Amino acid sequence: MITSTSNQKVKELLQFQKKSKARNQERVFIAEGSRMVGETPRKSLLKLYVSETYYNKHREELEKMKSHPEVLTDTVFAYVSDTKSPQGILAVIRQMDYRLEDILRKRTPHILVLDNLQDPGNVGTIFRTAEAAGATGILMSRDCVDIYNPKTIRSTMGAIYRMPFLYLDDLQKGIRTLKEKNIRIYAAHLKGDNSYDKEDYRRGTAFLIGNEGNGLNSDIARCADTWLRIPMEGQAESLNAAMAAGILMFEVSRQRRKG
Amino acid sequence: MITSTSNQKVKELLQFQKKSKARNQERVFIAEGSRMVGETPRKSLLKLYVSETYYNKHREELEKMKSHPEVLTDTVFAYVSDTKSPQGILAVIRQMDYRLEDILRKRTPHILVLDNLQDPGNVGTIFRTAEAAGATGILMSRDCVDIYNPKTIRSTMGAIYRMPFLYLDDLQKGIRTLKEKNIRIYAAHLKGDNSYDKEDYRRGTAFLIGNEGNGLNSDIARCADTWLRIPMEGQAESLNAAMAAGILMFEVSRQRRKG
Repeated sequence: MITSTSNQKVKELLQFQKKSKARNQERVFIAEGSRMVGETPRKSLLKLYVSETYYNKHREELEKMKSHPEVLTDTVFAYVSDTKSPQGILAVIRQMDYRLEDILRKRTPHILVLDNLQDPGNVGTIFRTAEAAGATGILMSRDCVDIYNPKTIRSTMGAIYRMPFLYLDDLQKGIRTLKEKNIRIYAAHLKGDNSYDKEDYRRGTAFLIGNEGNGLNSDIARCADTWLRIPMEGQAESLNAAMAAGILMFEVSRQRRKG
Repeated sequence: MITSTSNQKVKELLQFQKKSKARNQERVFIAEGSRMVGETPRKSLLKLYVSETYYNKHREELEKMKSHPEVLTDTVFAYVSDTKSPQGILAVIRQMDYRLEDILRKRTPHILVLDNLQDPGNVGTIFRTAEAAGATGILMSRDCVDIYNPKTIRSTMGAIYRMPFLYLDDLQKGIRTLKEKNIRIYAAHLKGDNSYDKEDYRRGTAFLIGNEGNGLNSDIARCADTWLRIPMEGQAESLNAAMAAGILMFEVSRQRRKG
């Protein structure tokens, strides 16, 4: 059992929690909680850590597992946990590794393109919602928040394991590739002329979603075939970025279910 | 200028930021940032505080205002601010005071009923989205998170000033009142049989939205006329509560625009 916060493994865990550089160097991330750990694909799970209390409560099932967990005292576990009330289980997991082809494989793609999104909760919620809406993949500009940030991972509610995604250095080039595949590019834009619910999303569809405060970068917005508007009442100036993405994606889902 | 964190006004501000009890005793809340403060209805704004830097930058416009602001040193302002990077302006604002009649006044109500929602960001996002979707009011069970929590206020993006709402001790009684007004009650429920996009929302409509982790309390769910399901793909078990509410509300908006 690890009893000290100056233990080398503990120091490493803390680096993985706090530093994207440390995560990316080792190509790992951390997921916490029995649900997130339970949904981890077996081949991606590198190392399991549990608190003493968790170990004593779940000893039998833990001993059946192939990857024998490392036990930390409750205090040390709380020290490495990213949450205020740790469940007592976390895993070090191998980062995903998708290519553009993984995202384009489906016959009628339904893709989100995220430009400079900065809020970890928003990006996590977009992943979770995208899975539910049947989206086929997510492209992100390099300056989006790190998907492996613990808060983002938590908000994905497991969709991180199942939703193909890719960071791109050149988002415009990525969008051009989508166009070559006959995917229609829609920018969610406050100055859009076309109401989002008047378009036909039964063909290949991609939505460009911009930064929470500033909206879409104009160079990116110019890449779109169509600028969409979500009609709003009251004095609301805009929607939360994840909410806007969710409303668009579920309109696609609604139309495709209708056939 | 206030230069000390032990100043009585500073202590009071901190209480208003941190304690719902202090807010409710004085029937006030705090909004931060030039946008939130700028949208405050004049008659509700009780007291304005700015940082020294903010004051020096905006002196002319601030001196034109009726309610002369109190200036705090930047350090003291940062101490009372709820944000990591304070903009340097906050206001003490009188709490709203709606009655059920305010929520039922419109000819075809579009109401959200929130049961035990706990996440401040979720509730704030629901207010913001509700305004944009043209909802007419929000009812909340007494055990929902405090709407006047600084994080909730921030996520409403100003909708707090414009969206009528009410906390109810007896949510079931409130729902019965809606029914008497011929408003159809829909529960958003994972076990719902009816797909949300097959219902007709052009008449009076209310949605019951449950707790983030546990969904709707069964006593509340039983009050509904219809249980709705948002069809989901993948292994997604549920949507974020604010997202589910947003998708339902924008389906109402879509149908009502179509006429």
